[in-house]
Amino acid sequence: MADTTTRRTVLGGVAAGAALATAGGLTAAGDAQARQRRRPRTGGPEIGILLYDGYSLLDPTGPAEVLSRLPGATVTMIGRRRGAVRTDTGDVAVLADRSIDEVERLDVLLVPGAGADGTVAAMNDPALLSWIRRTDRSTRWTASVCTGSLVLAAAGLLAGREATTHWASADYLSTTFGVTYLPARYVRSGKIITAAGVSAGVDMALYLAAQMAGETVARAIQLAVEYDPRPPFDSGNAAEATPELKETALRLLEASQAR
Amino acid sequence: MADTTTRRTVLGGVAAGAALATAGGLTAAGDAQARQRRRPRTGGPEIGILLYDGYSLLDPTGPAEVLSRLPGATVTMIGRRRGAVRTDTGDVAVLADRSIDEVERLDVLLVPGAGADGTVAAMNDPALLSWIRRTDRSTRWTASVCTGSLVLAAAGLLAGREATTHWASADYLSTTFGVTYLPARYVRSGKIITAAGVSAGVDMALYLAAQMAGETVARAIQLAVEYDPRPPFDSGNAAEATPELKETALRLLEASQAR
Repeated sequence: MADTTTRRTVLGGVAAGAALATAGGLTAAGDAQARQRRRPRTGGPEIGILLYDGYSLLDPTGPAEVLSRLPGATVTMIGRRRGAVRTDTGDVAVLADRSIDEVERLDVLLVPGAGADGTVAAMNDPALLSWIRRTDRSTRWTASVCTGSLVLAAAGLLAGREATTHWASADYLSTTFGVTYLPARYVRSGKIITAAGVSAGVDMALYLAAQMAGETVARAIQLAVEYDPRPPFDSGNAAEATPELKETALRLLEASQAR
Repeated sequence: MADTTTRRTVLGGVAAGAALATAGGLTAAGDAQARQRRRPRTGGPEIGILLYDGYSLLDPTGPAEVLSRLPGATVTMIGRRRGAVRTDTGDVAVLADRSIDEVERLDVLLVPGAGADGTVAAMNDPALLSWIRRTDRSTRWTASVCTGSLVLAAAGLLAGREATTHWASADYLSTTFGVTYLPARYVRSGKIITAAGVSAGVDMALYLAAQMAGETVARAIQLAVEYDPRPPFDSGNAAEATPELKETALRLLEASQAR
């Protein structure tokens, strides 16, 4: 049993392929080429993640990492237009492989959060909000991370619901949109799931994975991405943070934004 | 004090900008344009993240989210060539803004992990390994996430050191490269820090942030990205996983790879 497990572990991991390549001089040029094509899959959920200017990088990519491991799943980054969409800091761009005009139906729609400028722009983009509303009609799940819930709210999807968002936007979410803010990692209200700030999208995606494919699959994905979090500090909870630390956090966020 | 804090919270968060925009009909088109430019910064650390075909999406993006909040920091995605570099699942592409030929010096070099094909290809790419070796000579920190440590090892940087990697590649790392594998979230050996699988890069990046900018800044970044992890399950630790769950995890990873 131990032998079988070890062998399977090696085969499934990098080791077997690496040993092969080292021994036989295998190059992966052909594979790399193939990887340039987007994976054609069928039968699994179609997951669409909306990218808009100024999103925070981990908001779409954390959930994408988790949800792309669901059996048969396709994760598509969707932008206002096709092409590179840059983060709030301006440092990184992820490619939108489809424009909103090219996407009519999704099993899962996920809207990430952004810095102040990006969130405001998205909340004031009628075509974007209209696409979100239209797409939401046929989703099995509609989700947000961080200030993505403000965008869902601006699209009219959160009225009268319980939801969450980044701690610094909690007051705004509840006073502006009549939403009951809950300080939780993620909040489910019917088919809508909102996650707290940035990193909370990973926790939410595991919950969503369990809803869609069962708990065993979700647990296996958690193991696959080795999500056994051990941050060196215990400072991520705004409810326990000092005013001084909150101020420093907001100052760092502000200073890191692209100008 | 409470008033001041609240006001600062609102100003620093999305709320103030959003209220302004809603009231005044502000559009952020000009801001969005500006954001297309990469942020010119000076004085802070130059952080370079290597993208190679088939990397796992969260490996570079988790640390990038954290490290881009360091005061004055610039995070640059670096590829074999400039342009889109696709993940192991083929679902997502991040843009490499610089090619390895354009980057001579970095304060921090981070090498992400990949699926089997991508890791093997990187381990067998002499030009890539040579660039890693050359760049490492002048870094303050050289780091890896997941199977990125196999790439560092193939470049000759881990000989005789303690290091970590994705749990499924632990045996391979120690037997092939004479590395002492430690089953920790991240392992520091001199200026080299290796992180465990995929999500461990976030924990490692916070540790690195503290080393570079002090504990208060690191704690503030943790709060800024609301990293108060609460996964719905407790299945991320390979040492506690059943052989069956490990098999399912490896099967999901294998099945999600681009063909």
